Amino acid sequence: MAEHTIKAFDEEIDRLRGLIAEMGGRAEAAIENAMLALQRHDKVLAAEVVADDRRIDAIEAEVEKLVVEVIALRAPMANDLRDVIAALKIVSVVERIGDYAKNIAKRVPLVATNSRTVEPISLLPSMGQVAGEMVHDVLNAYAARDADLALAVVERDTVVDDFYNSVFRTLVTYMVENPKTISECAHLLFIAKNIERIGDHSTNVAEMVYYAATGKTLPERERGPDIQMED
Amino acid sequence: MAEHTIKAFDEEIDRLRGLIAEMGGRAEAAIENAMLALQRHDKVLAAEVVADDRRIDAIEAEVEKLVVEVIALRAPMANDLRDVIAALKIVSVVERIGDYAKNIAKRVPLVATNSRTVEPISLLPSMGQVAGEMVHDVLNAYAARDADLALAVVERDTVVDDFYNSVFRTLVTYMVENPKTISECAHLLFIAKNIERIGDHSTNVAEMVYYAATGKTLPERERGPDIQMED
Repeated sequence: MAEHTIKAFDEEIDRLRGLIAEMGGRAEAAIENAMLALQRHDKVLAAEVVADDRRIDAIEAEVEKLVVEVIALRAPMANDLRDVIAALKIVSVVERIGDYAKNIAKRVPLVATNSRTVEPISLLPSMGQVAGEMVHDVLNAYAARDADLALAVVERDTVVDDFYNSVFRTLVTYMVENPKTISECAHLLFIAKNIERIGDHSTNVAEMVYYAATGKTLPERERGPDIQMED
Repeated sequence: MAEHTIKAFDEEIDRLRGLIAEMGGRAEAAIENAMLALQRHDKVLAAEVVADDRRIDAIEAEVEKLVVEVIALRAPMANDLRDVIAALKIVSVVERIGDYAKNIAKRVPLVATNSRTVEPISLLPSMGQVAGEMVHDVLNAYAARDADLALAVVERDTVVDDFYNSVFRTLVTYMVENPKTISECAHLLFIAKNIERIGDHSTNVAEMVYYAATGKTLPERERGPDIQMED
């Protein structure tokens, strides 16, 4: 590339990374606010999380447009091209994470229908916090191409999976003992599942970051609580 | 592009479309077999669906590699570039659909734990069939750039959403009356949710196909059963 093209390309890559960082920050805030709304039965905050998800979707569209422009105008080679394509993949995962947070927020009004709190809710905020930290750390790992931090995110996913298994068992027991709460508990199950999926997707990004930084793939893990539940 | 480059580009686009068609066919088969395994409590078939998902993931990786090659070697312009980038997005959605089918299959051994069938299972096969048809039709719509067929897929998603709402209510009622089945019913709830998500993702692809064929976006629909349940 000519010097001025390289400079323009670098600026566009910076803009791309800036958009991804903003998107990640918004996804992280969405998780935090969705969990807060759940704890406080705050329907207004929940509605805000749902509405704010449009901004996350809009940033994804902006990144896609910018990637097409960068490729068309700068014709990046080999590694640069792969980086730009990887950005597309990362934003599609962050968009999914935003969707999960939105789904949690959408369930807030369904969980506290009888103005009483379903007890097993107590594990969920901690679970949400771990997942939120994973999103935070994996985006830092991406920005800094930090393989160690990416690996730490991958390893932390078992914490989220363990939380999920506890929540699942606790909720099922609670439903058996309190059949009137079954409908609310079913929504809590879905919320737990959404948080568990946020952990999975953060892990997917972490694996990509690790590969980009080291050229090595992590050993295949059979993830997910379904497998563990079969034990 | 020079004539021989155009020919090579067209061949690569054909290969890309062939891979997407194969991937779609496999995702469709995965849904069908997962639902069959569920109905028959066929753990062997369920395990096959889980194992076969690796092939779907492998095709996604192949498409990603091919897209990078095509862009690097052929430097496609404007519409061609957008088509190639769209292929990336479509395979990422088909990969998700494959994951949902895999998740359904993973739950098969968890649903028939006490060698008895939970009754409300009866709606699920029909629901799965509609979702499978949506996947089939949307891939045909993509291959033929058929806006009408894409629109029909979008419209059919309300059928899947209605199914989901019925299944949810039926399962909750059943759990209240049969507390011993709560754990199995919780897995059935997740299965219903997975099918509902397959419908959503087929709809997303259909919207992309419609836009690519007509240049027009469909009016924003507030999709998903969560909203409906708030009524």
